[in-house]
Amino acid sequence: MGQEKEARTIIKPRLLKGFRDSLPDAEIPKKAIIGRLEQLFSSYGFVPIDTPALEYTEVLLGKGGGETDKQIFHFEDNGGRDVAMRFDLTVPFARFLALNRNSLPMPFKRYHVNKVWRGENPQKGRYREFIQCDFDIVGLDNAEADFEILSVMHASFALMGVEHYRFHLAHRGIFNQMLAHLQIAEHNSEILRIVDKLRKIGRLAVLEQLQALLGDSTKAQAILRYIEKEREDEPFLTTLARLEELGGGESEHSRRMRTIHAYLVEAQIDEHYILDPSITRGLDYYTGLVYETFLVDLPHYGSVCSGGRYNDLASLYTKEHLPGVGSSIGLDRLMSALTELGSPIAQSGSSADVAILNTPSSPFAERDRAARTLRKANIAVSVYLDERKIGAQYKWAESQAIRFVLTDGQRDRFTLKDLQSKEVWEAVSADEAAAIITKELH
Amino acid sequence: MGQEKEARTIIKPRLLKGFRDSLPDAEIPKKAIIGRLEQLFSSYGFVPIDTPALEYTEVLLGKGGGETDKQIFHFEDNGGRDVAMRFDLTVPFARFLALNRNSLPMPFKRYHVNKVWRGENPQKGRYREFIQCDFDIVGLDNAEADFEILSVMHASFALMGVEHYRFHLAHRGIFNQMLAHLQIAEHNSEILRIVDKLRKIGRLAVLEQLQALLGDSTKAQAILRYIEKEREDEPFLTTLARLEELGGGESEHSRRMRTIHAYLVEAQIDEHYILDPSITRGLDYYTGLVYETFLVDLPHYGSVCSGGRYNDLASLYTKEHLPGVGSSIGLDRLMSALTELGSPIAQSGSSADVAILNTPSSPFAERDRAARTLRKANIAVSVYLDERKIGAQYKWAESQAIRFVLTDGQRDRFTLKDLQSKEVWEAVSADEAAAIITKELH
Repeated sequence: MGQEKEARTIIKPRLLKGFRDSLPDAEIPKKAIIGRLEQLFSSYGFVPIDTPALEYTEVLLGKGGGETDKQIFHFEDNGGRDVAMRFDLTVPFARFLALNRNSLPMPFKRYHVNKVWRGENPQKGRYREFIQCDFDIVGLDNAEADFEILSVMHASFALMGVEHYRFHLAHRGIFNQMLAHLQIAEHNSEILRIVDKLRKIGRLAVLEQLQALLGDSTKAQAILRYIEKEREDEPFLTTLARLEELGGGESEHSRRMRTIHAYLVEAQIDEHYILDPSITRGLDYYTGLVYETFLVDLPHYGSVCSGGRYNDLASLYTKEHLPGVGSSIGLDRLMSALTELGSPIAQSGSSADVAILNTPSSPFAERDRAARTLRKANIAVSVYLDERKIGAQYKWAESQAIRFVLTDGQRDRFTLKDLQSKEVWEAVSADEAAAIITKELH
Repeated sequence: MGQEKEARTIIKPRLLKGFRDSLPDAEIPKKAIIGRLEQLFSSYGFVPIDTPALEYTEVLLGKGGGETDKQIFHFEDNGGRDVAMRFDLTVPFARFLALNRNSLPMPFKRYHVNKVWRGENPQKGRYREFIQCDFDIVGLDNAEADFEILSVMHASFALMGVEHYRFHLAHRGIFNQMLAHLQIAEHNSEILRIVDKLRKIGRLAVLEQLQALLGDSTKAQAILRYIEKEREDEPFLTTLARLEELGGGESEHSRRMRTIHAYLVEAQIDEHYILDPSITRGLDYYTGLVYETFLVDLPHYGSVCSGGRYNDLASLYTKEHLPGVGSSIGLDRLMSALTELGSPIAQSGSSADVAILNTPSSPFAERDRAARTLRKANIAVSVYLDERKIGAQYKWAESQAIRFVLTDGQRDRFTLKDLQSKEVWEAVSADEAAAIITKELH
């Protein structure tokens, strides 16, 4: 056995490019944020679902086209099936709706937080495996559903402790109405794609590309007048009136937008929403309201929560008409942003409230009994199970951001220390320690 | 556009064999159980980690051998790398330890709850994608760590509301001592593999196979005497004394077992643990304590939580010696069992506490205001956003197991109904409704 072991090759413990481990420092706050978001979604009556990580490639690639094709992990499984790992949560949701439609309440409000995989070239802050957090309302096409999604978005950012965030709203219908008014509706998709690049390539390049496409500088300039606001702080309804004018008047789409805005005002959250006609969202399935979310203090992060209204999401898989509206939070990117902003929720990295250390005078059974007493009082306790010197034990507790330390158990009396305030309580029982810790923590 | 749509082929929305969607009915209780388990692990100072779903095939397959090879999903990615989806959480954890050793506190207590994938042929209750729930203490080889894992197992089953569960413990070291005493230690692995089949093939077949292997019926019978207890309810220490005798006397291994048992008695949880020398665990990396968990009322489910002590988990990836002890709960199997047992935790399928229905007299803004008031009181509220007949709305609430219904908002007064008790409260404000619901729910 011994010789066999010596001879054995050590395999280098390496990770794939674009993939990473999540250590407790990162995983604890990530779980905390996901837990709070899920609780929030539940408080609005949204229910969780999950779908397989692997699906038939044909099923996942029906929508998305060539660009996506190169980015997905797909292969032939042992049974000769062409299978792929999901690259987002939207396509599987469409498939899910088509398959399970009859088992779901309608309207259906769902959330889904899980991993997706993309083979794209990893850049700073972008990985090949990341967590998406989607929430949608399906089976409805009205302002109330649009508003509810927007209001869940607001509540999500509020709970994460971000101070300055702004939801940029636009409406595909009003945009199309403007194109129809200019008699260039047939170029709809190409125009959308050009306009979508405004933030990346700037207004001049957009204008050039539009002129090249339309062969008409007046119309190209009209489009630019539509997507650019005169003043950054132009009021919502002023912008809306201007867009209506550029589109030849009021329409069901602009009326929808006005109703949504009225609900936001009513809920006293309208200050976070601006009408930003430059938002288009590249994806073809959006048909109405679309939105992106920017952190005012970290604009370079780009949108951290995006989505919109689609009026036929599952049309690839069913003839049934299933309108909906939804939103997707890029959780890993948001986590980086929260860390950069110093948000407390991104820093909650302690493994327990109290560590019970191992001093020669305290038998294990006594320390374990104290741990049980503290746990009954809803205090998280990590018993130090090794036998090192006390200094190493303190270091172990501190490295895990454990605030309290209990030592010297003798006949069930302990010394309690608050490593933060340096306060010390001598000869306390486990019950007394529980009371003190509870008081200090709250 | 319309014509284009007509002509488009509908893709059949099918799932891969062995994979399944998780609908809210299943996902709500699954999340509830995972949440409670994670909270429990945290209360013992265990911290969460995650690892990538994809790793180099070479890294994952170093341990496990031929059997596993056929079962894993592996392929060549776009960069020409041979990659595989993780098939358990133990091998990635070993790799994780080797790679991140210097960033981790030691002793290190971790938990990991996530999906794994196996290409094995799906049977009843077995899928190709399933959730494992692992918890381990690494960096220690002592009775206190062994005991703590066993006590977390007990706390886990207690919180899930299972009444009759039994942890079957054995010790590889005592077993090996017996083999050495019989002078057949060199057949260790083969004997373990035969003995491991006792439950499946029965005692006679085991005896035959042992005789065939050893060419000695006396020794074969001695092994059987070791693994079989005389009486099902033989006390722990009686069995232990008998095993020591069969192995030629006391040893560090039997002393370890006695210490662990003393801690279980001290913690008043010993009634759930029996010493069952027929438990061996097939896997080679176990070196000390091993265990399986059976639900007394559902023995055909097999073990729902297993594990043991390994004294060199990461040896494939590092020369550093990293002993540990850990346990793995098969969450999907356990969920089926909990459902079959009628455990309340497996049935908590309601999407919200209260539904606010849409009656013509109540404007949306007023209903949304009531929803906000209720949510502030920590009540989960689903606002019905469609405009159907009231009967359909009640059905919608009932199909989601929503207990309360709020209707007829007029000047901020509502009718509240408890669909369970049929009680009705008329003309209440949202605040009053919040107070009533809170009282009735607790």
